[in-house]
Formats: sequence, structure tokens, C-alpha cells
Amino acid sequence: MQFELSDRCKEYQEKLVSFMDEHIYPAEGIYAAQMAESGDANFHPPILEELKNEARKRGLWNLFHPHESEEWGSPGLSNLDYAPLAEIMGRSPYLAPEATNCNAPDTGNMEVLQLFGTEEHQEKWLKPLLAGEIASAFAMTEPAVASSDATNVQLRMDADGDEYVLNGRKWFASNALHANCKVLIVMGKTNVDAEKHRQQSMMVVPLDTPGVTIVRGLPVFGYMDREGHAEILFENVRVPKSALLAGEGDGFMISQARLGPGRIHHCMRSIGMAERALDLMISRAQDRVTFGEPVANRSNIQDWIAEARIDIEMIRLLTLKTAWLMDTVGNQKARTEIAAIKVAAPEVALEVIDRAIQVHGGGGVTDDFPLASFYAHQRTLRLADGPDEVHKRTIARVELKRMRETVRSGV
Amino acid sequence: MQFELSDRCKEYQEKLVSFMDEHIYPAEGIYAAQMAESGDANFHPPILEELKNEARKRGLWNLFHPHESEEWGSPGLSNLDYAPLAEIMGRSPYLAPEATNCNAPDTGNMEVLQLFGTEEHQEKWLKPLLAGEIASAFAMTEPAVASSDATNVQLRMDADGDEYVLNGRKWFASNALHANCKVLIVMGKTNVDAEKHRQQSMMVVPLDTPGVTIVRGLPVFGYMDREGHAEILFENVRVPKSALLAGEGDGFMISQARLGPGRIHHCMRSIGMAERALDLMISRAQDRVTFGEPVANRSNIQDWIAEARIDIEMIRLLTLKTAWLMDTVGNQKARTEIAAIKVAAPEVALEVIDRAIQVHGGGGVTDDFPLASFYAHQRTLRLADGPDEVHKRTIARVELKRMRETVRSGV
Amino acid sequence: MQFELSDRCKEYQEKLVSFMDEHIYPAEGIYAAQMAESGDANFHPPILEELKNEARKRGLWNLFHPHESEEWGSPGLSNLDYAPLAEIMGRSPYLAPEATNCNAPDTGNMEVLQLFGTEEHQEKWLKPLLAGEIASAFAMTEPAVASSDATNVQLRMDADGDEYVLNGRKWFASNALHANCKVLIVMGKTNVDAEKHRQQSMMVVPLDTPGVTIVRGLPVFGYMDREGHAEILFENVRVPKSALLAGEGDGFMISQARLGPGRIHHCMRSIGMAERALDLMISRAQDRVTFGEPVANRSNIQDWIAEARIDIEMIRLLTLKTAWLMDTVGNQKARTEIAAIKVAAPEVALEVIDRAIQVHGGGGVTDDFPLASFYAHQRTLRLADGPDEVHKRTIARVELKRMRETVRSGV
Amino acid sequence: MQFELSDRCKEYQEKLVSFMDEHIYPAEGIYAAQMAESGDANFHPPILEELKNEARKRGLWNLFHPHESEEWGSPGLSNLDYAPLAEIMGRSPYLAPEATNCNAPDTGNMEVLQLFGTEEHQEKWLKPLLAGEIASAFAMTEPAVASSDATNVQLRMDADGDEYVLNGRKWFASNALHANCKVLIVMGKTNVDAEKHRQQSMMVVPLDTPGVTIVRGLPVFGYMDREGHAEILFENVRVPKSALLAGEGDGFMISQARLGPGRIHHCMRSIGMAERALDLMISRAQDRVTFGEPVANRSNIQDWIAEARIDIEMIRLLTLKTAWLMDTVGNQKARTEIAAIKVAAPEVALEVIDRAIQVHGGGGVTDDFPLASFYAHQRTLRLADGPDEVHKRTIARVELKRMRETVRSGV
Repeated sequence: MQFELSDRCKEYQEKLVSFMDEHIYPAEGIYAAQMAESGDANFHPPILEELKNEARKRGLWNLFHPHESEEWGSPGLSNLDYAPLAEIMGRSPYLAPEATNCNAPDTGNMEVLQLFGTEEHQEKWLKPLLAGEIASAFAMTEPAVASSDATNVQLRMDADGDEYVLNGRKWFASNALHANCKVLIVMGKTNVDAEKHRQQSMMVVPLDTPGVTIVRGLPVFGYMDREGHAEILFENVRVPKSALLAGEGDGFMISQARLGPGRIHHCMRSIGMAERALDLMISRAQDRVTFGEPVANRSNIQDWIAEARIDIEMIRLLTLKTAWLMDTVGNQKARTEIAAIKVAAPEVALEVIDRAIQVHGGGGVTDDFPLASFYAHQRTLRLADGPDEVHKRTIARVELKRMRETVRSGV
Repeated sequence: MQFELSDRCKEYQEKLVSFMDEHIYPAEGIYAAQMAESGDANFHPPILEELKNEARKRGLWNLFHPHESEEWGSPGLSNLDYAPLAEIMGRSPYLAPEATNCNAPDTGNMEVLQLFGTEEHQEKWLKPLLAGEIASAFAMTEPAVASSDATNVQLRMDADGDEYVLNGRKWFASNALHANCKVLIVMGKTNVDAEKHRQQSMMVVPLDTPGVTIVRGLPVFGYMDREGHAEILFENVRVPKSALLAGEGDGFMISQARLGPGRIHHCMRSIGMAERALDLMISRAQDRVTFGEPVANRSNIQDWIAEARIDIEMIRLLTLKTAWLMDTVGNQKARTEIAAIKVAAPEVALEVIDRAIQVHGGGGVTDDFPLASFYAHQRTLRLADGPDEVHKRTIARVELKRMRETVRSGV
Repeated sequence: MQFELSDRCKEYQEKLVSFMDEHIYPAEGIYAAQMAESGDANFHPPILEELKNEARKRGLWNLFHPHESEEWGSPGLSNLDYAPLAEIMGRSPYLAPEATNCNAPDTGNMEVLQLFGTEEHQEKWLKPLLAGEIASAFAMTEPAVASSDATNVQLRMDADGDEYVLNGRKWFASNALHANCKVLIVMGKTNVDAEKHRQQSMMVVPLDTPGVTIVRGLPVFGYMDREGHAEILFENVRVPKSALLAGEGDGFMISQARLGPGRIHHCMRSIGMAERALDLMISRAQDRVTFGEPVANRSNIQDWIAEARIDIEMIRLLTLKTAWLMDTVGNQKARTEIAAIKVAAPEVALEVIDRAIQVHGGGGVTDDFPLASFYAHQRTLRLADGPDEVHKRTIARVELKRMRETVRSGV
Repeated sequence: MQFELSDRCKEYQEKLVSFMDEHIYPAEGIYAAQMAESGDANFHPPILEELKNEARKRGLWNLFHPHESEEWGSPGLSNLDYAPLAEIMGRSPYLAPEATNCNAPDTGNMEVLQLFGTEEHQEKWLKPLLAGEIASAFAMTEPAVASSDATNVQLRMDADGDEYVLNGRKWFASNALHANCKVLIVMGKTNVDAEKHRQQSMMVVPLDTPGVTIVRGLPVFGYMDREGHAEILFENVRVPKSALLAGEGDGFMISQARLGPGRIHHCMRSIGMAERALDLMISRAQDRVTFGEPVANRSNIQDWIAEARIDIEMIRLLTLKTAWLMDTVGNQKARTEIAAIKVAAPEVALEVIDRAIQVHGGGGVTDDFPLASFYAHQRTLRLADGPDEVHKRTIARVELKRMRETVRSGV
């Protein structure tokens, strides 16, 4: 056991921190101004393309992509080497991940296309995604049922000759309103009579397919995000049989495969947001004076700072260990840890951000600081990919099984 | 000691509940549609004026106003009799308070004009406010300093002949972007050399006075509220000496007088929001099925429901007792209780709302339900009128003094 | 609604506070010394009888007893008038309740004997209990089953001619090791085939009945309490049919009737312990100096003080309201509130006591201060009379029913 | 970075788990019986010597001792290799550490004697300690001052010719009542005029030195521990100048050196207790049935199980990382992490243990399960070696310094 990051990881860390300091943080104000000026919540501001060019030039492109490829600039980092980089990106979550082509849900979609896509899928969608030329969305959650139980999915994918006909309604399809979005990966049911976890399939559906309607973008605590969280109606949407990823009935399996790395990335970005919130909390506490002394001198605020540091250190280590487990024993054997960080990382981040807001006073809930927006998005993360309660249930069942199988004299 | 509401209060409760059921709740969708259609965040939608007319007709007008007046429809309710009504209004906070002319900060401003305004102030501003014809804002908090320490206020009010000249910057002036807003009550410093709590004065400033510029509206967790939270610049704003409320140096005193009832109202509305969030949580839990049974059958969700009920009952009683104390011994002697509810009511409401969001899944963070918006506004309340930490400090100092003065053999 | 205590209550409060200041607190050290000297955990120290005499002389006797009686010195106070007195007693829980003959479980047992006992029971047991001459225990909980579900009770009470034969094992029969304990009230099953809530009966069993064996006293966090928490074995214990309280099958009904007032008393004493812990916390914080200033100057400790004050005020009001409901609408209609305070009062007390311990440093966990012992007993209260989770379940079920029966447009 | 334990560590783990399963757990009942039979709280039960012999035979002796020595059976493990072993010992904290001669405070005292003792100290005290023949205590905390601020120490060590004369009072000198205790390491002041952190010295004082009086053993939540937490009076205690450890004025430095490993050990044992509490919680939940189903089926209890697993994993990783830091960069550079685990480990353990108690019902607070005693001791750990608040202060100061020294564009 040793806790030193690899040399390769440290080298990328250093390059990424420089990129953040020299380009990302300075771009935040420009980004806000370009968005405001556009008057369009889904505007694609030019600064983003500049940042993408700069990142590509610096070799900070597709860092998430586990498959080394000179063509696509993918260094082929392990989960463990990528995790600390995702954390750094999380400090500026609206710019850094997209600038480096490491943005969810494109990352998960690229992974799915790489693993389960046909040659045609890869040519048509994976390549431009890896090139950062298009964006994609993932349509899984539905408004009418509790999607935390994946078997509840109701969108129908009925075979009809050479085609499937899709009917149903999705929401929280993030990225679907992105100016560059061209394609959806859709989960639905091909066979309602099959075994519970074999009823679902996943398909590649171009966004411009007739019958696909973006009904609206959903706000998240008042925020209309640039990339959008779309409600999408599928009415007699016809796709060829070749739209299928892997085989019929493999939808649940693909969704499981997709989730592992996605959660690691989310959690590391959460940690990055928590770190930035902590920095902001300390700065503000050092700047503001009340009742004759800087707020930073007060022991209640010092307790908050210390508790933030303790909690961040703990969740970072657990996330890194989870990454290591995925690299070494695979996602399935790491399922307790993956569930654990999915619960704990947003919880830690929310507490730190909430306290940072409190130290900022009224300014903390505005957009003069990124805190309110961090809060809104971290809060949403407690629901995305399944609510905390479902992940805790997963963990508890593993523990209950463990005790049933153990005869320990110490109990 | 007895816990039965007065007959008068119960009579108003009944009338108000009918008004909510018959007019307010049904209007929520209409309101949302009119706002959306207008494309203007500060639009004044016609439904509001309809609701105001209906409320006035039903004798549900100026319920907050402690001074009985047939002319203005003010029943002259005590704080204790008004509190349960404010709670009911809080269930639909964007409609009910304004529909009944019980909306903050107009309520506090009316109270200040009643108690400290000149006859001219009352004629020109109080009357149209009581009539619901105009709106007003309160400009106290400043961006450059921690306003939780009121002595930090920096806006200058320099005497110059018959006039004062105001220079400075305020923010979080709520209501200043309301379509009907005509007047500001402004806190500033008339004498920086006076004793610490006598440097401040309060003045009545028409919104259209030259030199008053609304710089921008502030978002609250992404929400651009209809009434607005304005940042306002004061550049050589000249007002006559008669703009003064009470006397020079009375600003701090007025601000203290203003706060008591305002906090009771806020806290009762918080409780109303918590009650509605609890209702929503239960409904959703009864409707949604996961892993084979309704979410409401799960004991973790049942624990949340029970904890919500317990906490709401407790904070409601403390708020009512505080109202009773204000009615019987006055705001000053009730200062521990006023500080206590200011801390506890948003805390209880936030916990209940947060859990209601969790039970709603993704929908909980959108505007399909009022929960995310309730959360954002209750979170802001932990900062408005001073952050929790300042109120806790107030309470602790009373306790420390109590022990210093006590010789108890039981310690 | 008004929050002033009745004159009668205030008069008793004043008398009781004087008694505490003049006799109880000064006796605490004497009590500890007499117990230590005796070397017997169940010793009955002479100071207790002195305090009982003094209390009787001052008219502070049987205050809990709702039935006015000159003979027994019972003033016949309502629950609402008694509650604030129980709080004061709770400040010195090992002396004040017993000194005033208001000690659990004797209080509940006296109530049961008054309401459901035969004339013989009352002559033989109730009178000496009211006179403070004997003590009694209540044998309900069993080690082998989860007694939180009362239908789990397994002790058999089999009819055999004119007698019942009792076989089974009880534990946590508090008071059974008290030097004066003479009688048990025992819950068991007379008919395992009856409807679930009609299988149980309650009987009066003299402690010296053959077949009754006190197996051991149970420690509570290391404390071997003077009155004892006994494990009792019943082996072919024969009692006459007249031992029955009320009728066969009434056991569950009696246990419900018994619980209401008992919980109010427990909760008010919890509040008294919390108040004393707060006083101790403040005193210690004012006395101790670290890093150059008194601990009481630190804002984290001030936050704890304020939070204690807020929480205590809230739970006290809810407990008083519950007492008022029991007085006015009866225990059954107050069941949500009774369940609520049973959960919330120990929770509040534990938090305050825990923080008081923290401020005391190492001394806090010793018996130089009453804090560790308060903690141990309040923690136990979260399990006695049913764990928190059962009470929350009760509350949630009422709420779920409420929503099923409501058609509200506001949801 | 990799999370696999070393082969050496895993080998010892395996041996230690076998020893626990075959000897320690089965001995727990025997131990309790021997203690009960003796009627002496400080009895040294024969089973302990049997366990020590067995451990020595199995090569499980002095595992804590970082200095490899065949003579003393010390394998010379690193902190990182020892930590997982200390965790396992923590599952049976009253037997396993002492059985393996890894018991605090002997471990810390041995380390101090090794690093700072004279040859005479080592011959006379270190050797028999390493052999497990005698026990020792550490006298630092004083009843009259807040010892969390080490500069508050008041015991006087006045030079007088060839001797020092010690006068003062200590408490919480753990192990001083151990049947085998022979020697104290005492902290006091040799020079009150020196610089604040150079006033203190540490000395070796045989327990039988004239003037040393053990006043009493202190209870911890009602528990009178076998080894004792002694209050000790020093009245004109004369020791030779050779009693000094390191030099005059080095007391503070030695205390700092002593604390690092001690805290790691404490924290790992806390984790072991938490793991055992979790096992007990699950077992009990699987065994008990309420309202028709096993408690383990309830989602609130499943949440507790999951939260325990998450929290334990996180604090274990942070503790292991801290051990690794101490091994690689030293205690001083690991001071944030050492402070962090000192706060977080007991906090996690207390939460898990408290919930395990709750699942056990009344039995949980008795000694039929080790939970109440674990709770009492973990609660005490939040005060021992400085209260949480002092450690948080340490962490916050490092963070505040970090931000003052950083110019980051990301803030």
C-alpha cells in the first residue's frame, strides 16, 4: 500500500493545473459575459472552442479515454491516473471538462460506443465525439416512473420488420440542448415478457430522426444549463435494427457497464468543487470583518474549515481506491465502493459548499460566486444515476449477505 | 397556558383556507403560464390583481397590519392571531402573501412608515401601500461589507443645506424590480463620528430620484425572482431633510423595531412551506413504486415523514410563543426567542424540503414542483436579516449573562 | 392560546425550586458519600428518608398523582400543571423524584392500581406506595424477543383452577432491586389464541412469591443503579385469580393507558437534565481558559449554547402542549404528540449533555459531574417504552392516513 | 498509488485473525467471569497471562514496536504494516492489545523510553515492559486546568541539589491501577520562566516513590476499568536528576513525539470496534423480528448498515494514509492528517456503535454485549490527547496559512 500518485499522473496534473491557471480560470468571466450577451441559454460561446484548441495543443485531450490512441489524442490513462485530473477539472465544471473533451455524458457515451457500438456507429458518432466536433445525450430516466428501479423503464422499442419503432417519454437527457448535440443513446424495452433484467435494450438514435421532439429544457434549482436537461418525446420513431448496441436485451448490462467510470468521474469532480468551495470559504473568511475581527478568527468557522478538510481527504481516498479497484478487479467487484462514493462524494461536497455559501453572506446565493450553482448541481447528483437510497440498499445487501455467510466467534 | 387558537384567529383561518383552496392553488398554474408567456422576469401578471380583488372582497386584506382600520381593511390582528394565517400563506408564497397585501418587505416598510413616518410620508407612501397600489423596497445590505454587523453600513448620507446627499451601493433590495415599486427605505450613515449605534439614519427615497440606479437583479440559486433582489447604486442622490424617518441617528433603532414582526412572518411562512413540502413528500411516496412496493411503505421514508412532523410541531409552537411574547412583553424582551426562530424555522423547513426533493427524484429539482424554489428561498433566509451565526451569538450572550448573574446550588 | 403557566403551577414551582436549592442540591454530595460508604449498590441511604420527610412537610408529595386526596397529600394537578414540576425534579434525577414520591415506575404503577386495581390491591399496595413506604417494579420487557412489538411478549400466565401459573423471563424491571420493593406488575399472555391485542393480561405479583427469582441487576453503560434494572425469572409462579388487573385480555389496553403520563414525566425530566447540563456547560466554559481566553468566548462553544437553548425551548413547548392535549382531549387523540416527545426529548437532552461533557474535558465522563450518568440514562430512554423507530412509525402512519383521506388542491 | 497491503502485513493479519478466533473471542466470557468472581475491579485475571503466553508463542508480540529485535520478539513493523493489526486487536480491546503487549499507554511509554531514556531507564523499565512483566502509566492531564492547552500544566518539578521535588496533582493516568504497574512517566514544569514550550520536562517516577499517592480511580460512564484512570497526588516527591527524559525543557517536544503513533493505534482500534459493532448490528437485525419481519429487512436499518460501511471505509483509508505519511515524511509533516483521524475515527465509531446499540434494544446498554462499553471508551477518546476542538483548530490554522500563501486564480 502506498499513497503516492504515479509519475505519469503527476505530470498530467502539473500540465492541467497550468492550463487551469493560465486559461480556464481567466476564461470564466469571459464565458459568463458571452453567455449573457447572447441572450440564449443554449448558446455555444466562442471562448469554449478557443479553450478546446488550447487543451488539444497541450496534450490535455480525451484524458478520460482509457484506450490509448495517438489519432484521438487519448493517452489511455487508468481510472486511478485519471481521477486526480477529473478532480482538478471539477474546480471549473462548466469549462474545464468540455475544454478537454472529458465532459459527461459524452464520456460515458463514447465508452459505450467503443465497447458496444458497430463499426458504423464508431465511424459516424464515436470519431466526431472523440474529435470534440459533436455532442451527445443519454436518454434513460422517465418522468412517469421511479427510474431508480431500472426495470421500471417504459419506453417501447417494438420490432417492426427491419426497424424498431420507439414510443415513450424521457427526461433529464443532459446535453440534448447542447448546440452541437447530434445523437442520443436511448434505453427502452424490446421485450416486456423477458426476464426482468433482459427486457431492456439500448439504441443509437440521431437527434434529427423524425418523431423525436425536445419538449423542453428542465431547470435545476432555477438554472437553465447551457447543455440542457431535456424532456424528449418519442412518437413512432423508426430506427434501423442496426441502431442496436450489443444485442437485444443487453440494455441493463450496458447501463451497468456505463455507470462505473461515470460515477468515478462525477465524484472526483465533486471533490474538485468541494476544494474550490473550501478555498472560497477561507478567502472570504479572511477578508470579511465582523464585530471587530476577521471572520476567519472565529472558532465556529475554523471548525467548518477543519471539518471540510477532514471530509474531503476521506472521500478522495475512497474514490481513488475505487478507481484502483476498477482498474485491478473490475467494476463488478468494486460495486460496494462505487455505490459508496456515489453517496458520499455529493454529501461531502454539499456540506462544504453550503458552509461556504453561509460564510459569503447574501453574495453566496448569487452568481457572483460559483457556489450556488455548485450546490444546485451537487444536489441533483444525489438523484442522478439513482438516488442515495438505492445505493445504500445495494451496499446493505452486500453486508447482509456477508454476515449470513460468516461464522465469526467475535460476534 | 392553553394551546387553543382564539376564535377570531380560527375564523380567519377558515376563510383563508377556503381562499387558498378556491383561488390560490388553482391560480398557481395560471401564474406560471402568464409569467412564461410574458418573457419578462419582472412582469406583473394579471392573475395577481384578480387575486388581490378577491382577497379584498373576502376581508382577507392587510391581515398583518396590527392597527385596526376600516378604511384600509386592516383587522388589527395581534401577532399571535396573525401568525397561523402567515403560515397558511406560506404554502403558496409567490401568490398568497401578495394577494392579501401581506407581502414582505412591504409589510415591514408599512410598519416603519406608520410608526416613524411623517404625515407626508404616510399620505404619499403608506396609503397607497395599504391599498396595494404600489410596492416598496428596503435598502440595507451592502455588497462591500459584512452587513450582519449593522455598524458596518457604509452608504453616506451627508447633510448639505436642506438636503442629504446619498452615496453608496446596496444590494439585496428585494422588491425593487417589482413592476409597482415606487419607493425605497434606505439605511445609511449620517454621522460617522457618533457613538457606534447612533451613526445610522433611515430615509424615504422615491425610486425615481435622480442618481438612483438599479444596476441589476440578483439571482438566487438561478432564480430571477419576479420582485427582484436589486443591486442599487446611489450617486449624489439628493433628498430633502424631510426624507428622514424619526430622527438623525435613529437608523439602528428603527431597524431593530422593524425586525421583530418581520421575522415572525418569515418564520410562519417557512412553516407553511415545510407543511406543503411534507404533503408533497407523502403524496409522492404513496404514488411511486420501486422494487415492488410504494416508497411510502419504506421505513427510511417513514422516518423522514415522522421527523418532519416532529420538527414542524416544535418550531411552530416556538414561533407562536414568540408572537405571544411580542404581544405581551414586547420585542426587546422576546429577543432570544426572535433570534431562536430565525435560526430554527429555515433549518426545519430546509430539512423537510430537501427530503421531499429526494423523494421526488429528478422532478424535485425542477419547477414541476415548488420544492427547489422553496429550498432556494429558505436557504437565502438563513442569510437575510443576519446569518444564523449572528443570531446564535445573540442567544449565547444572553445565556452567558444569565449564568454570570446566577448563584445556583444546582450547578 | 397563551403561554403563561397557571398560578397554581407557579406556586408549586416556587416551592419546589426552594426545596431543590435548600435541600436537594446540597444533599447530592451526602447521597454520594452514603452510597460509597455502604459499599452496596442497592443501599437505601438515610438522606433519602430525610428528604422525603422534608418534601412531605412542604406539601411537595405525590405531585404527579392526578387524583386530589388530602389523606395522601396529592394535590390532584393536571398533566399541564405537573409537567413544569417534573422538569425541575429532573435536574437532580436521583433524589428529587423519589424525595417527592414522584418516582418512576412507582408513579405509573400507582396510576394502574388506582384505575384497574381491586379494592384489595389498593389497600395492600396502592396505599403504602402513596405513603412512600414501599416501592414497586413493572415487568414487561423480555430478553428473548423484541419487546418494541408488544405482541411479542412470551411470559405465560396459564389458568389452573383458582390460580394462574406464570412462567417466563423478564428484564429491565426497574426498581426491582430497590431496598423497599415489594411488588411487581407483570405483563404476560393468558390466551395465545385470542386476537393479537387481547392475548395479554397484567397481574399484581408480590416480589416474595415463590418461583420469582431476581437473576441479576443489569448495568446501564457501566452504572449499577441503586433501584436496579432486574432480570427476573418466573418459574411456576402461582398467583390467585384476583391478581388480575382489569380483565383477562386487557393487558395491552392497560399498557397503553399507562404510557401516556409516564412519557410526559420522562420527557419533562429529560428537559430538566438538559437545562442542568446547559448550566454546567456555561459555567465550565466561563471558568476554563485555553490559548489565552475563556472557553466561553469561543464562537463554536457559543453556538452550542445557543443551539441548546433553541432546542430546549422547542421540546419543552411540545411537551407542554402534549400534556394539555392529554388533559383536554385524552391520551388517544394525543398519540402523535406523545410519540413525538418520546423521540425528541431524549434526542435534545443527549445532544446538550454530550456537548456539556465535551466542554468539561476528561472530568465530563467521570462522576465528578452528573453528565456521564445523565447521558447513560437518557440514551437508555431512547429504548425504554419502545425504541425511537417504533414511535416514528406510529407518527408516520398517522400522516400517511391523513394524506390518503385528504383532497387538497395545494398538493 | 496502490491499495494492497504488503505481504508481510497480510501474513501477520492472518496469524492475528486466527489468534482472535481461536483464543481471544473464546476468552471474553472467561475473562468476564474471572473478573466478576474476583470482586476486585483491578484484579489481574489468569486468562490474560495465558493469552500472553499464547501470543508470544505465535510470534504476535510487541507488534507495535518499530524497532526490530529478536530478543524482545519485536518484528519492527512500519506504522502502515502495524495499523491493520491494531484494527483487528480493537475488536476485542480489553484482551487483544494486552495479550500481544501492544497496550496503551505502555506502547507510548516504551517508545519514549527507547528514544529518550537513559541506559538505566531502559534496563530497569523498558526491558520488563517489552517482556510484558510490568505495566506503566503516563501522568500528564491535570484536574485543575484545561490540559488541552499543554502549556497549562502546573505540576512543579523544582530542582533541589541532585534531585527534583515534584508537587502537583494529575488525573486520567491510565494503567496506574493495573496490578502490574510499577512506573510513571510524569510531565511537569521545571522552569516557569522559560519560553512557553520549554517550561516542561518529563521524568521517570517509580510508582512506589514516597509522596506519590493514588487518590482514586476515575469511572468512565460508570465503568471502573481494570487498568484504572487514576487521580494521583504528588507531595514533595523526590527523584534523582537522572529521572529526566532527554533534557530539561524537552517535555513538550517529547509529548509531541509520543502522540503520533499513539493516535494511529487508537484510531485503528476505533475502526476495529466500529467493525465489530457493525457485525453485531447486522446479526441482531437478522435475528430479531418485529411487526412480522426481521429488522434487517427495514430500509432505515439498511441505511444505517450502508452508512456504517461507507464511513468505516473512509476513515480506515485516511488512517492508513496517515500511517504511511508518518513512515515516509514523518510525524511533523503529517500533523494535519494525525489531527484529522483523531477527530474522525472516534466520531465514526461512536455513530456506528450508537446505532448498533439502538438495534439491540435494552440489551445494547448492558454488558451482555460490548457495545455500551465501546461507546463509553470511544466517547472518552474524543477528549483524551486533546478534545476534538483543539485538533480542528490545528487543521484550520494550516488551511488558513495555506490560503494566505497562495495566489490562485481559481478563487
